[in-house]
Amino acid sequence: MENKISKIGVFTSGGDAPGMNAAIRAVVRACTYYDKTSLGIMRGYEGMIEGDVIKLDARSVGNILQRGGTVLKSARSKEFRTPEGRKKAYDNIKKQGIDALIAIGGDGTFTGLHKFYEEFGVPSICIPGTIDNDLAGTDYTIGYDTATNTAVEAIDRIRDTALSHNRLFFIEVMGRHSGYIAINSGIAGGAAAVIIPEEATSFDELWELLEEGGKTNKKSNLVVVAEGSKIGDAHALARQVKERSSYFDIKVTVLGHLQRGGAPTYFDRVLASHMGVGAVEGLLQGKSDVMVGVRDRKIVYNKFDDIMSKIHEIDAESLRIAKILSI
Amino acid sequence: MENKISKIGVFTSGGDAPGMNAAIRAVVRACTYYDKTSLGIMRGYEGMIEGDVIKLDARSVGNILQRGGTVLKSARSKEFRTPEGRKKAYDNIKKQGIDALIAIGGDGTFTGLHKFYEEFGVPSICIPGTIDNDLAGTDYTIGYDTATNTAVEAIDRIRDTALSHNRLFFIEVMGRHSGYIAINSGIAGGAAAVIIPEEATSFDELWELLEEGGKTNKKSNLVVVAEGSKIGDAHALARQVKERSSYFDIKVTVLGHLQRGGAPTYFDRVLASHMGVGAVEGLLQGKSDVMVGVRDRKIVYNKFDDIMSKIHEIDAESLRIAKILSI
Amino acid sequence: MENKISKIGVFTSGGDAPGMNAAIRAVVRACTYYDKTSLGIMRGYEGMIEGDVIKLDARSVGNILQRGGTVLKSARSKEFRTPEGRKKAYDNIKKQGIDALIAIGGDGTFTGLHKFYEEFGVPSICIPGTIDNDLAGTDYTIGYDTATNTAVEAIDRIRDTALSHNRLFFIEVMGRHSGYIAINSGIAGGAAAVIIPEEATSFDELWELLEEGGKTNKKSNLVVVAEGSKIGDAHALARQVKERSSYFDIKVTVLGHLQRGGAPTYFDRVLASHMGVGAVEGLLQGKSDVMVGVRDRKIVYNKFDDIMSKIHEIDAESLRIAKILSI
Amino acid sequence: MENKISKIGVFTSGGDAPGMNAAIRAVVRACTYYDKTSLGIMRGYEGMIEGDVIKLDARSVGNILQRGGTVLKSARSKEFRTPEGRKKAYDNIKKQGIDALIAIGGDGTFTGLHKFYEEFGVPSICIPGTIDNDLAGTDYTIGYDTATNTAVEAIDRIRDTALSHNRLFFIEVMGRHSGYIAINSGIAGGAAAVIIPEEATSFDELWELLEEGGKTNKKSNLVVVAEGSKIGDAHALARQVKERSSYFDIKVTVLGHLQRGGAPTYFDRVLASHMGVGAVEGLLQGKSDVMVGVRDRKIVYNKFDDIMSKIHEIDAESLRIAKILSI
Repeated sequence: MENKISKIGVFTSGGDAPGMNAAIRAVVRACTYYDKTSLGIMRGYEGMIEGDVIKLDARSVGNILQRGGTVLKSARSKEFRTPEGRKKAYDNIKKQGIDALIAIGGDGTFTGLHKFYEEFGVPSICIPGTIDNDLAGTDYTIGYDTATNTAVEAIDRIRDTALSHNRLFFIEVMGRHSGYIAINSGIAGGAAAVIIPEEATSFDELWELLEEGGKTNKKSNLVVVAEGSKIGDAHALARQVKERSSYFDIKVTVLGHLQRGGAPTYFDRVLASHMGVGAVEGLLQGKSDVMVGVRDRKIVYNKFDDIMSKIHEIDAESLRIAKILSI
Repeated sequence: MENKISKIGVFTSGGDAPGMNAAIRAVVRACTYYDKTSLGIMRGYEGMIEGDVIKLDARSVGNILQRGGTVLKSARSKEFRTPEGRKKAYDNIKKQGIDALIAIGGDGTFTGLHKFYEEFGVPSICIPGTIDNDLAGTDYTIGYDTATNTAVEAIDRIRDTALSHNRLFFIEVMGRHSGYIAINSGIAGGAAAVIIPEEATSFDELWELLEEGGKTNKKSNLVVVAEGSKIGDAHALARQVKERSSYFDIKVTVLGHLQRGGAPTYFDRVLASHMGVGAVEGLLQGKSDVMVGVRDRKIVYNKFDDIMSKIHEIDAESLRIAKILSI
Repeated sequence: MENKISKIGVFTSGGDAPGMNAAIRAVVRACTYYDKTSLGIMRGYEGMIEGDVIKLDARSVGNILQRGGTVLKSARSKEFRTPEGRKKAYDNIKKQGIDALIAIGGDGTFTGLHKFYEEFGVPSICIPGTIDNDLAGTDYTIGYDTATNTAVEAIDRIRDTALSHNRLFFIEVMGRHSGYIAINSGIAGGAAAVIIPEEATSFDELWELLEEGGKTNKKSNLVVVAEGSKIGDAHALARQVKERSSYFDIKVTVLGHLQRGGAPTYFDRVLASHMGVGAVEGLLQGKSDVMVGVRDRKIVYNKFDDIMSKIHEIDAESLRIAKILSI
Repeated sequence: MENKISKIGVFTSGGDAPGMNAAIRAVVRACTYYDKTSLGIMRGYEGMIEGDVIKLDARSVGNILQRGGTVLKSARSKEFRTPEGRKKAYDNIKKQGIDALIAIGGDGTFTGLHKFYEEFGVPSICIPGTIDNDLAGTDYTIGYDTATNTAVEAIDRIRDTALSHNRLFFIEVMGRHSGYIAINSGIAGGAAAVIIPEEATSFDELWELLEEGGKTNKKSNLVVVAEGSKIGDAHALARQVKERSSYFDIKVTVLGHLQRGGAPTYFDRVLASHMGVGAVEGLLQGKSDVMVGVRDRKIVYNKFDDIMSKIHEIDAESLRIAKILSI
């Protein structure tokens, strides 16, 4: 079975995440190790449709594992959502002699590749690369560790000012559907409260927490808000607090895209390295339509349907800890 | 003359800036060196009015020079703007036996201290501590070097994403009246354009620059916008570009308060150390109503009126260089 | 059972590790949460013998979770190894009314506490705080994540020079008995080879790897050597390579103590937070003579004897990945 | 005069320094701006002799200004020290049509180019790129600001451990002939003492300082030692202190090559940008055999002979400040 695959195409798609380059490097070097050829498809599905493909070897991925972003670039492709677009992509892949695909990205990327696999049967494996850590089937996604550290560094800076002025800060971090970055940067940043999409904190509960902190003379008050907050974004929450009391001197910072970039942490590089090798080895073992993941520090492969039907739930223990420590 | 001063009160006021703690430490240790007593006045003029004063010695300022923010805290004081408030402050200072003052802050802080000096004649020196570098009479203010590096690190992260997606980013940095952070983080961040309060770039000129970059196939497009932009803030500029063309995939990031905090750079710590010693020595030499500054790497003292009547102009050469390099 | 414990003493001992302060804070705030009193014992067993103890409450541990080192300080105590020393320590503990102990440190710390528990029966729990990640019974120790990132940042800097000069660098990282920092900073730093205490790499094998890299035109050559290397330290290995061939331009850097300090990563802060709360809850549940750990993202408690009889083995998979990627 | 030069060759030589890439980029983009052609000579004089030359344009230097090291690589060339080597280099330069040279490096680089200029008359300008800041004719050299910040970050980490254990650390920083990094990282790192090549501190004076710190209960003791110390390196000094007293718990860290790499600070990028443009404009104005520098924030050009006959003296004021603050 193994010898049927000889040319593997790798690409990145969706939002970029730190560690994607480490994953690309691992895929390419694992190909070299197993005497397979690797090709890089530029700009995700867009480059697949346009035939924008480059040759990659062990040397061409030198000195990239420490860089943020993706050297293969990424793009959103409307055309790939059409049957005609996917047909074009398939024709290009055949022309290049690519007989298996590895995609690095998030759920949008996976959905596209799943459809493509169903239509054309090209062996395919996905690597979870997204800062949100919002995918079932893996304990961690590539980029999440770095993004959370970036958020915490920013919170540390903001705390300097909060402490110096006895201010209340609302800090918005990424996570449209997932509170992973928020809850963990909140614990690590010593937040008084964390607002995440998964948990039904009401504004009154938030208010109570802030009031209590005031009473017990808490030195700084930071509230970390996930993008996907159900009770209003950071600006909206700040406004509501202001309306209820003039006690607090309030500021808002939205960290935004700065959480996506930067040199990946060791954790993301090592995770990406394991997953990149795991993806190649999975293909060579005949796996397809799966996502490679890491559970309890071991490589696992989960079927696309299994992953997409579940959500990556927030650890209830973390929520509990966050509350105890914000005393 | 020297021996008239025996107890110096030091305080921080206005927005905090990285390096303020290094300045406090330098003031206190210089006092120890010259056998003077130093007292810390908490929360600026607020603490002066309330008599919130602590004793400081060489040991109590240990292990603070690497910390952002200010251990003496800062606040805005409405009461100090009234004659009654200032009278209270003066009475407290007399009660404490403080016979000279050193303030670390920006122009608002200086104006307050100048008025106080005129009314009560307490010998006073200001140390320029503000990230904006917007004070005449010194080449650099404390905190500016750190803030610009923080902005550049953020821009570096954002560039990873900009490059991966061929996006156009508008990045707003601090500087309500001054383009220092913007122009220098713009040059250092490889910005396609920099919008500052001091220069009359029109939207059409900006548009032209962006279009040219598109033509010559520039890989990333970053526009750095100072808070005090005269042609609209980062969000407004992004909107205008979107309205004129759908060519660009545009995102906006407002760096905000994260530029204020963090461990100061070596430059800010050394600058603060020189200025802190300089302030104490200035007082002992009989100087008053002046700001200590550094010009061409030498300590200088300028009268309050001289400083406040001038602005710290942006180096024309930097504007020229920024344009050549954004080719 | 729970209500028997009302005053918990916490201390740090052995080499400091980033995240120890976050663990102290978590212990103290969990005590507040469960209406228990917490005392800080200064300088480990030394302070226990001398009765150097401070009161801690939720506010006194504010603004420390982001700091490296330990606010309770650490020391080695010869006297505690004697029965007389331990008796003194016990008397002090009784005098203070402390009825349970939480120690943060490594195996030396644990051994001391175990002996103390056997002799005096004071309920005791250990929290693993050491950068080496060399303790069985937990997937991660506090400080390891930060130290590995610090090592990787240093390797990234050194790679800039290695690449610019086509040089071979030997970089020595911490780990006297454990290759965790070495293997993971090696993978993350793109090392050509990693020398760890657990694996019997011969000098000839190392030589072969370096030669191969030369042949395939590898751009940089970094060898990461754990302190506990069995075939010579970084300087010795560099000497041997020089003796065998003048082909390589070789430099050595020993990272040393700089790996111990710095602001902890989010991971170490969150780990320390979970463990700190876990230690208090363990004591309240009647556990003693155990180490709190995290296995597969869940809090576990292991008996002292179980932990000390095992070693924390290096993941064989990581060794395999390191080899594939150094192609 | 201006139109005589149409093709400029740029190269880096000697030890790499952060900001060299920003200087290369500035040279190339200034060439584009003035309608000149730019070529990159690889590996300094080595590549000149071998004819290893690449074409550079505005796009090929995109996304390099934030990277440490040098994309043109660097090497030491023995052959260039011979008349035959220089003749070969000259022939290659003629063949390529290069009619002016810009070298980025330190005094060794400049001496080579000066000789070459004297022999063959090729218009030449040097840009000071070295972390040591040891060149007369400029206030700052490229890389110095970054290296000093790197040293200070390392010292900050080490201070965490020093404070936690009440230890004395000797930290060796770069600077074979110059104490710039040492004195400024010493002030910024809160060192108890700084040992530099330019100043005749005796061991007894050092000893006295350390003893005094002990007496006044100084919390940490850090001694920063420049590589070029005249009274022994960090290891030797530590040994001497140990021999005289067992009071101190002493450790040594040699920062080494990690000071050379890393992303340049904003200051180094902006400095390099100004100097790169300044070098091209100098050549076009007919200047030759000069080094471009920055004095009091203005571009200056100094003749090679003027620079080499002077040393870049340490600011006496900094030495004075260092002493006052180590109280």
